[in-house]
Amino acid sequence: MENNNIKVAILGLGTVGSGVYKLLTQQSEDFIWKVGSKLEISKVLVNNINKQRSLAVDKEILTDKWQEIIDDPEIKIIIEVMGGIEPAKSYILQALKVGKHVVTANKDLLAQYGKELFDTANSQASDLAFEASVAGGIPIIRPLKQCLAGNKIEEILGIINGTTNYILTQMTYGQVSFESALQEAQRLGYAEADPTSDVEGYDAARKLAILASLAFQSRVTLQDVYIEGISNLTLADITYARELGYVVKLIAVAKHSEEGIEARVHPMFIPYTHPLASVNDSFNAVFVKGNAVGEAMFYGRGAGELPTASAILGDVIDVARNIVNNCTGRIACTCFYQSNHKNIGEINTKYYLRLQVKDKPGVLASIAGVFGNHDVSLATVIQKHRNENMAEIVVITDYVKEKHMNDALQIIRGLSIVAEVSAQIRVYSND
Amino acid sequence: MENNNIKVAILGLGTVGSGVYKLLTQQSEDFIWKVGSKLEISKVLVNNINKQRSLAVDKEILTDKWQEIIDDPEIKIIIEVMGGIEPAKSYILQALKVGKHVVTANKDLLAQYGKELFDTANSQASDLAFEASVAGGIPIIRPLKQCLAGNKIEEILGIINGTTNYILTQMTYGQVSFESALQEAQRLGYAEADPTSDVEGYDAARKLAILASLAFQSRVTLQDVYIEGISNLTLADITYARELGYVVKLIAVAKHSEEGIEARVHPMFIPYTHPLASVNDSFNAVFVKGNAVGEAMFYGRGAGELPTASAILGDVIDVARNIVNNCTGRIACTCFYQSNHKNIGEINTKYYLRLQVKDKPGVLASIAGVFGNHDVSLATVIQKHRNENMAEIVVITDYVKEKHMNDALQIIRGLSIVAEVSAQIRVYSND
Repeated sequence: MENNNIKVAILGLGTVGSGVYKLLTQQSEDFIWKVGSKLEISKVLVNNINKQRSLAVDKEILTDKWQEIIDDPEIKIIIEVMGGIEPAKSYILQALKVGKHVVTANKDLLAQYGKELFDTANSQASDLAFEASVAGGIPIIRPLKQCLAGNKIEEILGIINGTTNYILTQMTYGQVSFESALQEAQRLGYAEADPTSDVEGYDAARKLAILASLAFQSRVTLQDVYIEGISNLTLADITYARELGYVVKLIAVAKHSEEGIEARVHPMFIPYTHPLASVNDSFNAVFVKGNAVGEAMFYGRGAGELPTASAILGDVIDVARNIVNNCTGRIACTCFYQSNHKNIGEINTKYYLRLQVKDKPGVLASIAGVFGNHDVSLATVIQKHRNENMAEIVVITDYVKEKHMNDALQIIRGLSIVAEVSAQIRVYSND
Repeated sequence: MENNNIKVAILGLGTVGSGVYKLLTQQSEDFIWKVGSKLEISKVLVNNINKQRSLAVDKEILTDKWQEIIDDPEIKIIIEVMGGIEPAKSYILQALKVGKHVVTANKDLLAQYGKELFDTANSQASDLAFEASVAGGIPIIRPLKQCLAGNKIEEILGIINGTTNYILTQMTYGQVSFESALQEAQRLGYAEADPTSDVEGYDAARKLAILASLAFQSRVTLQDVYIEGISNLTLADITYARELGYVVKLIAVAKHSEEGIEARVHPMFIPYTHPLASVNDSFNAVFVKGNAVGEAMFYGRGAGELPTASAILGDVIDVARNIVNNCTGRIACTCFYQSNHKNIGEINTKYYLRLQVKDKPGVLASIAGVFGNHDVSLATVIQKHRNENMAEIVVITDYVKEKHMNDALQIIRGLSIVAEVSAQIRVYSND
């Protein structure tokens, strides 16, 4: 006999899947109040049904056959927490096509195939919710899509990768090298054995693509994001940053101006008085500037079993409320516009530069001359004698177009008095 | 001929009302994309139609007659930004009763008459949205009601009054007295001519009642909130706070434990490493602890024309989406439970105390003895010689039940060696 419970299936029972299972089970009573209907976990898709699990899960609901889920018309909501592109993409598309609703944490998929997924959801008035895909437990998707919907968002700055933020915090306050900090992060489980996706900025770039699409209501994909990681950062630059009143963070930046959208992930000097500067360890934060709201920031745990499950549960409750009220597909894809994208060479930013030069008269004048010829003005210059022959020059510039900076540096690298350009890091400024 | 625009009326054309009018007008084109229908301002209720206004507003839509609005069946959404209890309360109730939807920024009304308003909205499946009532532009209502709906929220700590936060920032970093900081705040328009509601904590208490009701899903009214303001704070205490690693903030605290709900607004020592400690000037922030999400914080502008209008517009878009999708009343009042309320005497907290005592041997031992008899243990003690006869003792205690602390202080005040208990301020701790 059919009951009136809203039936869900969970795809994947890893860290996040286990968290979702626990929370859903704990809260099953409360759903009657919150949603107007009980929620019931019908199936959990796993690779190996017989695997030993620490989680106390009813074996009857475990399955290794997707077909049992997609073919069950009573299952209304699919919670996809398996990650990766395939088979998640096929499963989600199939589910949406038969009118099921999907809650997903899958940033890889959304950042690359968002349009296809949302078009499919729209065509069936199905819900496709993804609060957990960016910044874990921190409410940011719904605030951008709903609370701030009356704003023209101008800028987003995010610390949206916990691994790199942990490493940078260790480097800054523990004065350890990138390699040592990475090892410690791996030991603590904050970094994976292959840390490339985190430390080279790809993970943050995927999340930024999702955030920027929401904020500017125009599709931004992973391919549109310029990416630099933190593996080349040295303690020397982190120490100069502190001396100059900054901290170094891996920042996901998205801006929208009349010239178009820019989206980029790279290390950045952040003034220590900025709210993002005190976001430390594995915490995440997203800083938003809107024409009406002004500055706002959202801070919290960007990953982990229960924080991510919290975001998923919020989505499940929302979708369930839509089902009960017969209004699924109520908020469709919000990419209403098609804005231009700016090339990285066209962005305007300030820079921190560190150069090794010959220690003799006229060197600074030569370098300053090249900068002057390329519209680069220098706001701060520190020159330090290193040994009898060499000096280190550290510079913070005013705003300059990135391509002009790169042109200037190409010439500077060719000067006989310049041994090396050791660092080139963008600097955030409120001006 | 009837068109398909969604028609709204704005009640009040003060600071916030003007902001709402501007944003709605600017964005009217975008509503077709965002909502699926155009939004049209049908009427604006004002006291004086002929008043000179800097805002360019079409005179035809101004009215001083509520009846023209309530009697117009085409007006679907009432935006109430007049503030105060009456006539706002009557207007909102009348509107909800005839099936209109209401978006309001009125914290006074919600903190006192929330139940009546929500019961009325529920009975008609009308929407009653109030994102703007707490913390201005910062998305906090919808995150609590939706994104974090799968959590058991354990604690809320808010800096939710910009005036007092501005004053305390001035006192802390400018080393000026409360009186001077208040005058400066009045000069800048951050404080009103009669600053009572802000500096004595009533404004924060109203907002806390709303936040706590949402967070704990059980009604908390203004009457349930214990309130102490900041007008007795001295520079001496702020200076000791810094010496001890804290900053003093006016904090709105709400906790939910098995013993019930506690809700209180008072000055508090916040460890300088806590995210709330760097929320300065007139900025607001709400810090939330949930069983799943862990720690999260929402930061931004808590007041002002456009930030508040941003929150209202988000609500208007949400309600309009409900109208278009025929699912108004989709999320009704979320006070599902009826929790007990804890008396202020029953709360557990740490304290900072400052006492003036006679400077002679055995004084500290006598005082420590009284504390010991009342379960108060001392974590930090500073004793400073003030002049030949008197000394100042500063203490930070461990956790103690408030009534035990008060009993101890009553006895201490009666000791012949004690001239004065100069300060008693609660201390936040993560333990």
